[in-house]
Amino acid sequence: MLPMTQHVNRPRVVVIGAGFAGLNAAKALANAPVDVTVVDRKNHHTFQPLLYQVALAVLSPAEIASPVRSVLHRAANTEVLLGEVTGFDLQKRLVHLDDRLDPLDLPYDYLIVAAGATHAYFGHPEWEAIAPGLKTLEDATEIRRRILMAFETAERELFAGRTPPPLNFVVVGAGPTGVELAGAISDIAGRHLTKEFRSIDPRQSRIILLEGGPRVLPAYPEDLSASAERQLKEMGIEVRTNAMVTNIEAGVVSVGKEKIPASVILWGAGVSASSLGRMLGVPTDKAGRVIVQPDLTVPEHPEVFVTGDLASAKRHNGQPVPGVAPAAIQMGKFAARQIKRSVAGKPREKFEYLDKGSLATIGRSRAVGELGKIHISGFFAWLAWLFIHLLFLIGFRNRLFVMIEWAWAYLTYNHSARLITDPGEKEQVENPKAKAG
Amino acid sequence: MLPMTQHVNRPRVVVIGAGFAGLNAAKALANAPVDVTVVDRKNHHTFQPLLYQVALAVLSPAEIASPVRSVLHRAANTEVLLGEVTGFDLQKRLVHLDDRLDPLDLPYDYLIVAAGATHAYFGHPEWEAIAPGLKTLEDATEIRRRILMAFETAERELFAGRTPPPLNFVVVGAGPTGVELAGAISDIAGRHLTKEFRSIDPRQSRIILLEGGPRVLPAYPEDLSASAERQLKEMGIEVRTNAMVTNIEAGVVSVGKEKIPASVILWGAGVSASSLGRMLGVPTDKAGRVIVQPDLTVPEHPEVFVTGDLASAKRHNGQPVPGVAPAAIQMGKFAARQIKRSVAGKPREKFEYLDKGSLATIGRSRAVGELGKIHISGFFAWLAWLFIHLLFLIGFRNRLFVMIEWAWAYLTYNHSARLITDPGEKEQVENPKAKAG
Repeated sequence: MLPMTQHVNRPRVVVIGAGFAGLNAAKALANAPVDVTVVDRKNHHTFQPLLYQVALAVLSPAEIASPVRSVLHRAANTEVLLGEVTGFDLQKRLVHLDDRLDPLDLPYDYLIVAAGATHAYFGHPEWEAIAPGLKTLEDATEIRRRILMAFETAERELFAGRTPPPLNFVVVGAGPTGVELAGAISDIAGRHLTKEFRSIDPRQSRIILLEGGPRVLPAYPEDLSASAERQLKEMGIEVRTNAMVTNIEAGVVSVGKEKIPASVILWGAGVSASSLGRMLGVPTDKAGRVIVQPDLTVPEHPEVFVTGDLASAKRHNGQPVPGVAPAAIQMGKFAARQIKRSVAGKPREKFEYLDKGSLATIGRSRAVGELGKIHISGFFAWLAWLFIHLLFLIGFRNRLFVMIEWAWAYLTYNHSARLITDPGEKEQVENPKAKAG
Repeated sequence: MLPMTQHVNRPRVVVIGAGFAGLNAAKALANAPVDVTVVDRKNHHTFQPLLYQVALAVLSPAEIASPVRSVLHRAANTEVLLGEVTGFDLQKRLVHLDDRLDPLDLPYDYLIVAAGATHAYFGHPEWEAIAPGLKTLEDATEIRRRILMAFETAERELFAGRTPPPLNFVVVGAGPTGVELAGAISDIAGRHLTKEFRSIDPRQSRIILLEGGPRVLPAYPEDLSASAERQLKEMGIEVRTNAMVTNIEAGVVSVGKEKIPASVILWGAGVSASSLGRMLGVPTDKAGRVIVQPDLTVPEHPEVFVTGDLASAKRHNGQPVPGVAPAAIQMGKFAARQIKRSVAGKPREKFEYLDKGSLATIGRSRAVGELGKIHISGFFAWLAWLFIHLLFLIGFRNRLFVMIEWAWAYLTYNHSARLITDPGEKEQVENPKAKAG
């Protein structure tokens, strides 16, 4: 039986992943003479650049996520399936789904694999439970829970007349995510919570940002790294560069022989590609990203595209295409265009990344940005960051609500999404009490 | 060491639970010459009357919940502690907290126990994992996940050319919660989702409301029960009264010898009091509620109040005070007033419940209500319900946001909080596929 949405003789396109790359590929194929099936493990697209706002209780999950079905509901040629890919058969052109539901093999004529990236713990998978990273809504609510629990624990201990554990928040890695997290913890601890606790003073919390390399935001120009570090220090954050983390255990981060006690440890140090890259059975780089041809396909399979953070692509100058949202969006649209060209009998093009600049936010009213040759810092950079992120947020409703929430939080310092919800299976690894080093 | 907020020689009041009763007691004590400590297992107050809106993906958790700390932050004499009560010593006047954090004994001069109620499964605790009830935010997101997963599963099965499980949603119990849930499932299935699925037709889902007694909303007058049943049937819901559930297993609800296949089973059939009632070591009724004196205290302990759903109190006409939010609010305020009177050397009063009426919502634009001798039904009752629930929602911000969300959902049929998030530890009990009977 042919499913309702599938047409005889129309090429079938399967898109794996509904992140920036996959979703933009699917949108670009909405009116093409093909049948599209989008598969994702989650039922929602997550706007990752704002995840840290959920982790820090400014925004709610529903404000930065939209059901994939909802985003694509006007695309009549598109079916959305919830499912986890467990393998590929590139010869038979099949994608295997084998997860909680009954197994299903999806045939394709064109395949776009856009499964993204996950946290990399440099050979220490045991650190993950202690120092969560920030990739999914579940990560964000778990980080929110840990940060809020640290304050609650300290309050109860001090109320009981006991010595509370030090309120140390250690962020490992000073890339954009680490810098965002450190800045946002400083905002929440320094301003809002002070009115609500009776025993502790949240302003006495220490926020320690550890970077293995010589400067924060290593992918940015040096002057912006210096500006970011200055802005972080103005917020009272302890920035330590050349500080390579050698061990992480519950409540303690080790930097060489030094042991830093920590109530909460967050990971912003590295990402590796989704394991689906290796499942394709084609050459990958050491981070597990698939080394793609100039048209973003894999060798010998011009019908198989790899896009977004899972792709290792080169720019014309030989530099790698960075693992950022704009690159993923461009790759997704490019792959869709190549499929439409192939269906129309036209030759392939070469992918070229158009760098429109980049912005990293640091905290309330602070950011740095590189827009071509223009470098900006501080409040103006933050306004630019705000504007661009609102513009690209999926869905009018989300944009409206996020704008209202931000305005509210900005004017009142009220972090209204400050809920500790059930940790579920992760509870056993929690240790809200820091051990002294 | 005396914690900062505690004053020598001022009576200490400990309030257990930050539901309607506990929170209103604490608020009423904000300016009294006492030191107040509020203890709750959660860091947030949940506005339970709107929980079903979270379960049905209209509202987000943060819109119907507020951090207890935030609600009480202006009460300078009040400390909020996150903690789980594990016992009482009424002789030594101590509350034991012994949970994930270090144990703590809280001394009190006055105690208000307002720990509320939980689901009752009539001697079948094994049904709980299969048929969740609706008391907490975690319950609501779990129910949301199950309902959305049922549609996703059916879509994938039909797409695969297989016969999907029947999209049956069985709600056990036709009290206010059961009626709300059934009506809201009908709303979400009948209107919005139809645009987004390609293979299934969500309108073909069956919603079956099972009630053991002879009529729906048994606590309401007969004419309103009849009206509610008529409104439910107009929405396409199968209402079955005198249908006593005899067994529940994954995917099947048994009513006598009949086996009803079910994708999702929800429980709205009964509540029992929190186990803290029995821990007090004083007489309780068969639902575990503490039988209180006319001043809501327990026998021989005029310093120990029990309020809200945990209290078994009588009205002057001998009827029980119902387990509804207005009664809990009134009891909380009453207990606070008695403590203030005792501190001022005044005698106790007797509690009298003031019944302002009750409203039960059925679905978009439908409700029934009893306001004194006036019985209302349909759209007007629904407007009254809407107005009153917005009015009592905690916090201006929440009210504003809920109003916007509702207006949005009402005008666009867009259920924007439709996220399936990680089930955590509950995953193993899930069975999205119904078994045929």
